[in-house]
Amino acid sequence: MKKNILILNGSPRNKGNTAVLANQLAAGANEAGAEVEQVFLHGLDIRPCDACDSCQKGGKGCVISDDMQDLYPKMLASDTLVIASPVYWYNMTAQTKLCIDRWYALETPDDFALKGKKLSLIMVYGDRDLYSSGGINLIYTLEGICRYVGMDFDGIVHGSAMNIGDAEKNSELMEQSYLLGKKLGAPD
Amino acid sequence: MKKNILILNGSPRNKGNTAVLANQLAAGANEAGAEVEQVFLHGLDIRPCDACDSCQKGGKGCVISDDMQDLYPKMLASDTLVIASPVYWYNMTAQTKLCIDRWYALETPDDFALKGKKLSLIMVYGDRDLYSSGGINLIYTLEGICRYVGMDFDGIVHGSAMNIGDAEKNSELMEQSYLLGKKLGAPD
Amino acid sequence: MKKNILILNGSPRNKGNTAVLANQLAAGANEAGAEVEQVFLHGLDIRPCDACDSCQKGGKGCVISDDMQDLYPKMLASDTLVIASPVYWYNMTAQTKLCIDRWYALETPDDFALKGKKLSLIMVYGDRDLYSSGGINLIYTLEGICRYVGMDFDGIVHGSAMNIGDAEKNSELMEQSYLLGKKLGAPD
Amino acid sequence: MKKNILILNGSPRNKGNTAVLANQLAAGANEAGAEVEQVFLHGLDIRPCDACDSCQKGGKGCVISDDMQDLYPKMLASDTLVIASPVYWYNMTAQTKLCIDRWYALETPDDFALKGKKLSLIMVYGDRDLYSSGGINLIYTLEGICRYVGMDFDGIVHGSAMNIGDAEKNSELMEQSYLLGKKLGAPD
Repeated sequence: MKKNILILNGSPRNKGNTAVLANQLAAGANEAGAEVEQVFLHGLDIRPCDACDSCQKGGKGCVISDDMQDLYPKMLASDTLVIASPVYWYNMTAQTKLCIDRWYALETPDDFALKGKKLSLIMVYGDRDLYSSGGINLIYTLEGICRYVGMDFDGIVHGSAMNIGDAEKNSELMEQSYLLGKKLGAPD
Repeated sequence: MKKNILILNGSPRNKGNTAVLANQLAAGANEAGAEVEQVFLHGLDIRPCDACDSCQKGGKGCVISDDMQDLYPKMLASDTLVIASPVYWYNMTAQTKLCIDRWYALETPDDFALKGKKLSLIMVYGDRDLYSSGGINLIYTLEGICRYVGMDFDGIVHGSAMNIGDAEKNSELMEQSYLLGKKLGAPD
Repeated sequence: MKKNILILNGSPRNKGNTAVLANQLAAGANEAGAEVEQVFLHGLDIRPCDACDSCQKGGKGCVISDDMQDLYPKMLASDTLVIASPVYWYNMTAQTKLCIDRWYALETPDDFALKGKKLSLIMVYGDRDLYSSGGINLIYTLEGICRYVGMDFDGIVHGSAMNIGDAEKNSELMEQSYLLGKKLGAPD
Repeated sequence: MKKNILILNGSPRNKGNTAVLANQLAAGANEAGAEVEQVFLHGLDIRPCDACDSCQKGGKGCVISDDMQDLYPKMLASDTLVIASPVYWYNMTAQTKLCIDRWYALETPDDFALKGKKLSLIMVYGDRDLYSSGGINLIYTLEGICRYVGMDFDGIVHGSAMNIGDAEKNSELMEQSYLLGKKLGAPD
């Protein structure tokens, strides 16, 4: 079966370092025969979860009519979700978190609609390492989420890339992204 | 000098557990003679940082015209910023992160406009502890921010409070919030 | 099949809070039909790994003749290893780490002799929570180890217990330990 | 005043990557005019803290007669303590932790004898980064300790160095160690 990979790009820049690495991952996955879609969250209308709890009552999903209504089916149809985010203020971008907070509607007391899917991470940061940049917080957040909902945290590509163009210059980072895509995209 | 305390409440609920504890902190701070304002971020129009970098070029601050333009002067006028957020998906709420990402405009290569101010945290979570809830990620994020910008991370109140009304029933948590307010509100 | 549970108690106190909770876990596991042994690491002669790498060359295991030679077969015969340690200086005790460092001899380039076994944790600390005590570092250390060697991190009991007698007074903690034992001890 | 720097090297290897970087730090510090001593903990007789609490009762320090009795005065006489440890099993080596656990004797209810001193870290690991190696746990442990006892966590040099000789080949790591030494060694 062809693999289906959905990249949720939470950077405000469509051609920034995050997108460059996400494109590499997409190229690798395509090479392996997968279908890949990259969604730029920044351009979308995604409102914050307002904790109305409607999604927990009727089984009808989230009642907020915004662009998440298109994203939910894409997420459900995917085999792998790739979170792609730069580190802003020691954590994922607000754009990324806006989307993740709305995953509440995919949860029931007994189950989670993304259970069993893979989750991967592409992350760039301006500082030199996971501690000084806070990138570790993003990893631990996704690790906690996967533990909670039963997703399989498979593959992290991360590195320092401060200015536009830095990712392209980092051949190791480019290669890692490509190879992760190839691995994720390979049919079973 | 009278202390000035600004509470940034990132919960979508104006009367939820986070607000209950924030009100306790405010009561303690008032008792000590401070002025306290609580801002509910959920109701505000705060757009995500779009990394336009204008704030880094002209010294004129952030160019996005939304409710952050009212919040910036309040933040600058405060002695202590209190981040009050429930844990959503192993991290702060998107509402909270939207605001923090916009702190970029308070930064220059050499300085940060909030440097030297205190930062405190009120945090509630549905799960039982800092690991299983992911609350630790929120603490580490703020710790990293304080290290980076030279704020003084002073005071954390956190505890489990799943349903509306849980915070009131937890007398220890209520007391801790009040006492933190009293400490933060005391004149030098 | 009867389950076999080995508790590695890294506290210097044979009757301290850690032992009290470990005994509770043992009682629960016995009740479920398991065999349980508790080893007090403090009394044993366990020398630090000296990185001689002999264990990586000959397939003959660790060349240091000390009490680890009795512990290795017990570990191999167990279904679940329970690490029981108080938090000392924001981490596990040195006694606990002395034993873990010697796990190197159980590793080959392709395999790890404890792979597939369960690992559980009993942890007490003097401070109030996982952040202020540093207990989180112990959890993250074991989480990393499990990820690396393919053990299944299943079950954490932790809580504040400063003085001798504190654990007995904490009925929730006592109950959690007992129930974890019952779960770990249940036959498949 | 001449600065006094004490390096506590917790590697079992006297000429391993940790020692190579520690020597670089020492060279930089000497160049800046400081006195530096490097102690190899592995060779010493340091027994685990047995929680006898004698040190908390009489004000006479630790009652265990072993090599810590020589180390305590050296630590007290230093301006900066440098912890130098490879990452073993997602954390500091047992040798390092044996020494740190004995810091208990430097603590009184109101004070800590190392308060106000600087603490720095040299850390090497076999895996590629702070998360996959567990190096982050070592940093968070020292961060917690510094927060607790009032030491000033100033300077971390860390990097991947698997085999003997790797550190020398990493010119960036060598330079960082030297520069940290120069900074720490500079007179006020």
